[in-house]
Formats: sequence, structure tokens, C-alpha cells
Amino acid sequence: MALQSWLPVPKGSHFSLANLPFGIISNSKLRTPRPAIAIGEDALDLSDFAKNGGFSELPSIKDHIGVFSERSLNSFAALGRPVHREVRSYLQSILSIATPYPSLLKDNQALKESSILSLKDVTTHLPLEIGDYTDFFAGVNHAFNIGTLFRGPENALQPNYTHLPVAYHGRASSVVVSGTPIHRPYGQIIVDPAATPKVPTFTPCRRLDIELEMGMFVCKGNKMGKRIGVNSAEDSIFGYVLMNDWSARDVQMWEYVPLGPFNAKNFGTTISAWVVLADALEPFRVTGLENKTTLQEYLRQEQKESVFDIALEVDLTIMCLAKSMEAANGNTTTITRTNACNLLWSFPQMLAHHAVSGCTMRVGDLLGSGTISGTESGTQGSLLEQIQGGKVALKLNHGEERKFLQDGDTISIRGVAGQDENSLVGFGSCVGRIDPAIPF
Amino acid sequence: MALQSWLPVPKGSHFSLANLPFGIISNSKLRTPRPAIAIGEDALDLSDFAKNGGFSELPSIKDHIGVFSERSLNSFAALGRPVHREVRSYLQSILSIATPYPSLLKDNQALKESSILSLKDVTTHLPLEIGDYTDFFAGVNHAFNIGTLFRGPENALQPNYTHLPVAYHGRASSVVVSGTPIHRPYGQIIVDPAATPKVPTFTPCRRLDIELEMGMFVCKGNKMGKRIGVNSAEDSIFGYVLMNDWSARDVQMWEYVPLGPFNAKNFGTTISAWVVLADALEPFRVTGLENKTTLQEYLRQEQKESVFDIALEVDLTIMCLAKSMEAANGNTTTITRTNACNLLWSFPQMLAHHAVSGCTMRVGDLLGSGTISGTESGTQGSLLEQIQGGKVALKLNHGEERKFLQDGDTISIRGVAGQDENSLVGFGSCVGRIDPAIPF
Repeated sequence: MALQSWLPVPKGSHFSLANLPFGIISNSKLRTPRPAIAIGEDALDLSDFAKNGGFSELPSIKDHIGVFSERSLNSFAALGRPVHREVRSYLQSILSIATPYPSLLKDNQALKESSILSLKDVTTHLPLEIGDYTDFFAGVNHAFNIGTLFRGPENALQPNYTHLPVAYHGRASSVVVSGTPIHRPYGQIIVDPAATPKVPTFTPCRRLDIELEMGMFVCKGNKMGKRIGVNSAEDSIFGYVLMNDWSARDVQMWEYVPLGPFNAKNFGTTISAWVVLADALEPFRVTGLENKTTLQEYLRQEQKESVFDIALEVDLTIMCLAKSMEAANGNTTTITRTNACNLLWSFPQMLAHHAVSGCTMRVGDLLGSGTISGTESGTQGSLLEQIQGGKVALKLNHGEERKFLQDGDTISIRGVAGQDENSLVGFGSCVGRIDPAIPF
Repeated sequence: MALQSWLPVPKGSHFSLANLPFGIISNSKLRTPRPAIAIGEDALDLSDFAKNGGFSELPSIKDHIGVFSERSLNSFAALGRPVHREVRSYLQSILSIATPYPSLLKDNQALKESSILSLKDVTTHLPLEIGDYTDFFAGVNHAFNIGTLFRGPENALQPNYTHLPVAYHGRASSVVVSGTPIHRPYGQIIVDPAATPKVPTFTPCRRLDIELEMGMFVCKGNKMGKRIGVNSAEDSIFGYVLMNDWSARDVQMWEYVPLGPFNAKNFGTTISAWVVLADALEPFRVTGLENKTTLQEYLRQEQKESVFDIALEVDLTIMCLAKSMEAANGNTTTITRTNACNLLWSFPQMLAHHAVSGCTMRVGDLLGSGTISGTESGTQGSLLEQIQGGKVALKLNHGEERKFLQDGDTISIRGVAGQDENSLVGFGSCVGRIDPAIPF
């Protein structure tokens, strides 16, 4: 039976008592960003809760209570998986209808009034200060689909693909929290690929795309020269977010030889605001896609159920008169339905590979999975795949069509694990609207 | 005539009064890292100097005096170019033999004893907390040499090369200060490139290389979606360091398709400890290499003398009985002599291109120039070029030879601008020793 809270948690809420994701909030009254958890349609301000004795029945956290007054979750994350587990479990007991400590919050009217805030009234911020951001390419269906467009199905995957989790270093400064508008980037593109010599045109991007991904935050790093073992890598995982790695396909096509994507990817990457702790996803482990290649020892993971059963959906909302992103309805088409289990490489494998060179991983580092796609039509995580490189258009509601994103288009990603409508473990949404390019 | 200091500055010192580079130091007595400047064979502890009224004759800095007690130069950098100029000029007057303020330091025995430390007795730290690190590819001779090895001289440069400064996002966490040993990385490599199918071997890197670069620190960023104009980009430049972007060529060859270098580059990047402020290099401006391509407007820089005349040298010291890196002599061969002017793209152009997508640049971001090579033998900034991809060996002193680096090899990069031995503007050294791979 689902855990039940004394706070109202509507059926279908992503933020059930089984979840309790962590984020950073502020509101009009208290502008300093501070940690919170989300439950139902509310947030519990952990700074206020902690200052008012909320953690008094959790003596082990006593010396670390300051982490709940910081402007990011980095210090909390740095306390490690056992502490996250203990704190989440304690907060579940505080919020449970059968709480053993009713005086701490449930029956403490003053503290309830000051520390419980409607999600509608809070602003969310980046949950962690990101050290480095790395984007992997572990969604094998996406890699195959894209590779097929360029090289045909026989040579779709590069020879290294099944031997190691391919990745590139991304741009940490351009990672933004859900709700932040993204300006269409300018860049150099080749309008006529057949022309010789190639002369670029400088223009707002014409092939603006999305990439549906999962993101993972690191809570335990390694010293330079040391490594992270694939079978102990779970200890390094703080939690997960949804991610949209906006991509300028035409800019990418011209710039990426020979060092990889650069400006095509560094104008914005959106993540969801609430970090679902690794422990909250434990019940949803499933086996990832099969890799028939014999792996190097350092990538052999004992845990076979190494990825998560998370239903993912992407909505495209076209411009309407509604002023806010969230309020735009009626013009929304769900363009992608897939699942986070569509990965050839697990996050522990990504971590192990990342650190195998001796590369320092730090608390707050963000790793992206790479685009997650299924194999069927309507399950792909990028427009480029859905429109077969540009050959077909995507049909939207009301007879509208799209190939790439137009100004005013809003992309909203949702992700949720679980079947019981009363105990879902979801990510909320990861939303961004494309604003026009800023003219020169 | 050269500025003269009342502190001893030996002939040929990189740290003349005309320089005054900034760094972060600690010593056995005061372990908290703090800002300092280098002069001759000494460091002036700016924290101590500031606390003891040293800046009392510079009223404009009064409200910002705290920046000299921080653990990095980020806050000082954020004050902007005019303040850096003012502070450096003031410190020159304090240290000048004809100082108008002798009581502040020159004749203040107690403060001299506490704030002036021999460089031999201090530990240097990373000068800034690095936000993001980006590595460019602006050394056109290097790009040509490498491209020739892979594709022949006709197709050496990719079509985009002269249209935009190619770059990739690097790994900020692996940037270390001069003197930090680098462990040889493990990685997947292809031992026999002719075999089909390709099966990687997991091994310590066998083709460990260097990349001689200049690094630049950003002191003024841009908001997301905004840009940095190429002709105002100088305002965003705090200063410069030497850089060695250690590279595992065999790892790179296998991993880099299709997203660029990853583990081949993220196990260590060494920078020199002292940041030479942008203003200190102003007298050494020269014209860069000619780019005959018609550039997009956003890359057209009015300042033609857009790069600097900095003599660069690379020493390779092979293992000997001397215990410290610096003390190893006799076994040293200068393997590269070149100049920092060998760039097709200037740092203002790199900044303008980086931000043209709307990518956020932040104080403390580090940009690398890419490998700097001349066109003659003995002027190339990587071993791969010098050994023509592996065809020839590099001759060292005492009949030794090298293709790639062996364990115990030490690489020391030096860079210096100016002709007058009494007023050189140099970078000191950028040193790293290869330690054996840590076994699994």
C-alpha cells in the first residue's frame, strides 16, 4: 500500500511521499535560494524546517544542519548516499499520516505556515552548482538512427560505440533550470552543402532541435589519477533530473569537424528543477539494452538491472496568446513517448569510464545520458530522427506541422516511474520556450 | 629605461617590475591560500599587505580590499580591467626604487618581513577557480601539421578552419597548477589499426604527448543569450598563463569519433602558476598569422596587432636521481623553440565566437589557444608533429631518443616577452612530470 501523507497529494502527482525530490527554491518573501523538497503541490522549505528544530529527532544530521541553508544542494549531496537515504526516510516519516513526531510539523501550525509553500508560489533554481557537465551518447537507438541518416544502417554505429560509452565535455555555464527561455542562437551554417568551396552564412539557427535525456548529479568524486569502480559507482550518484540538450543541427554540421560539437550545444541545456534521489528510483530498476560486445573488465557491471523504468514524454506546444509557458494549452501535441531504459550504457558505466583516465569527478558534476529514443515512430527523442533528417514533417494538432522548432514553440519533457497513481516517483516537467534570436 | 625595484630582481628574471603577475600562494606558516604578486625571486603576500594598510594610498580600491584575502583571484578579476590596471600600477609604484610611499612597505621593516616571501618557500595554487575550460585549435601550423599526417597536405585543414576558431569544451576539474605530477592514464587503444573488427586493448597510454599552448582567463562574462563583441573583448581578458594540454594520442584515436576528444584529454592539463595581466603584455603586441578568408562581421577585429610576441620553449628532462622536478639538470633537452604569435585566431576572436551562440561566459573561465607550432623542425608544440606521426625519433642529449613520453619524463614550458633583461615579462615555468600509471 502506498505511503500516505497528511499533506494533500493529488492522484497522479509526480511528487508522492514515495518520492520527495530535492530542489532549490525562493519566493517573493524570502528571496535567498534555499533547499526544499517537493510533496504533492507543495514544497517544504528545509532551511526553515531545520532552523525550527525539524531535524531534532535525527541526531546523526545534527552537525550538518547548515547544509539546509545553503544556496545549492552541493553540501547536502557531499554528505553521501547513506545520509541522503536517512534524511529522505526521516522526512517521509515526518510527512506520513502516521508520523511518530507530530509535534515537529504536522501539529505545529506556526511552522507549517512558514515552511510549507505552494509550488505555485515558489521560484525554482538550479539545484546544484555544476562543476563540469559531460554529455554521453548512451541512447543506442538514437545513435543508430542518426548514424543511419549519415552513413546508412550498415555503418550506423561507429566501431567504438559498443566498447565504450562515447561522450563529449559539455558547457556547464549554459545549463539552466526548467522554465528558462532559450534564445534561438546565431551561428555559421552552410546553406548549400553541395557548393564548392563551402562558404558559411551567419544567421539565426534554422534547424533547432531538442534532445530528450536523463541527467545525473555526482555526490562523490575521485582524486585525480584515481578511478571510480563500476560496481561501487552507485555511491557516487546523488540523483537524477530530466534534461533537454537543445541542439543547433545546422551549426553543428559545419563546426563539428574535427573536435566535436561546440556552439551547436552551448547556448542552453535545460534540466528539471527537482532532483529525484537515487534511492527513490531503486524500486524501478530494469535491465538496459543488451550489449553483445565483450566488455573491458572496468565496464563489467554486476548489477544487471542497471537502468530505470521511467516513462518519458515530450510535448510540443505552439505559440498561442497565453502568456506563460505552463498556461499554453490546446496547442499541445505529445510528440514523443519512450522510456529511460533505452540505454546501452548505465550511469555507473558512464562514471567508471569517465574516471578511468584518472579524470577528477567532483560533487555537483552533471552527466547526461545522451538522447533517449525507442525504435518505433513517435518514440524518438530528437526531431531530426522523427523527421528522418528532414524528409518528412511532424504532424501536430489542428493540422499544424513542424520540422524543426519555430520561435514561440515550447518543449515540455515529463518523466515518471511507477504504476500506482498514489505513489508515483516523477520528475515534474522540464520546460523551455524558444525565443527569437537577439538581433545584432 | 627599465623600471627599477628596491627589491632585488636578477637580470633575466621573468618577474620584473614591468610584469607583476598575480597568483595564489601558501606557505608552511600560513597555510590558507591567498593572493600574491611575484617580483624577482620573491612574492608579495597581498593579503598581509592589504591588512596592514598597504593599499591606503589607493582609495579607489578601499571597498574591495577583501578580494586580496580570498582563496582565488576570481573576485579580483571580477573588478575589471581598469581596476587591474590601477592596482598593478600602484604596486609598481610601491615596489619602485623611487616609490612615493616608502613608509607603506620599503621602509616598513615589520611588514616587509611578514609580507615578502621567497618564491622558494611558497606553494603556488590554481590562480582562479575555473568555471568552464574551453580548448581552441587556433595554432594553424599545428592544425596543418596534424592534418597533413592524417589526410595529406592538400586536405590538411578542414573547410571550416579559416572561417571560425574551432574548439571543444574541455574538462575544468582536471586543470592543475604547475608542479603537479601527472599519472599516465589508462585507456582503450587499438594496437593493430589494420585488424577487422577493431578490438580495443585496455592499457596504460603508449603515445603520451604534450600540447604547448597559451591559456587566457576571463574577467568579464556575458549573460546567456547575449554576446561579446570582438572589438570590446579585451575588456573580458584578465590575463594569460602557459598551458600544457597533455594528450593520450592512442586513446584519442579510438574514442574521438564522432564527438571529439574525451578521456584522451581529461586526465590533466597543466597551467603556469602566475597570471600575467593583460596590460603587462600590451607592449608586446604583434600581428598574427594572415587569414585570407573573408570573415563574418562578428569575427572582424579592428586591432591588427592581435597576438603577442612571446618566446616559448619546451624542455624535456629525462629521469635522473635528482628528487625534485626543478632540480633535475644535465638531462634536459630543449625540444621546442617557437613563439606565441603563431596563431590564426586571437583571443578576442575566440571569445567573440564562443559567445556568439549566446553561450554564457563567466569570470574564471579558461580558454586555451590550441597547440602553438612554427613551421620549421624544432618549433612544433607537440611530439606527434616532431616525430612525424611516429616515423622518426626525437634526439635528446647524451644520445637518448624519444617518440612519446616515458614515465619519469618532465616537461617544462617557459614563455617570456621582451628583450631588455631587466624588464622581462615572463610566465615562469609550467612543469609536469609523468608518473607511472596507477595499476588496477
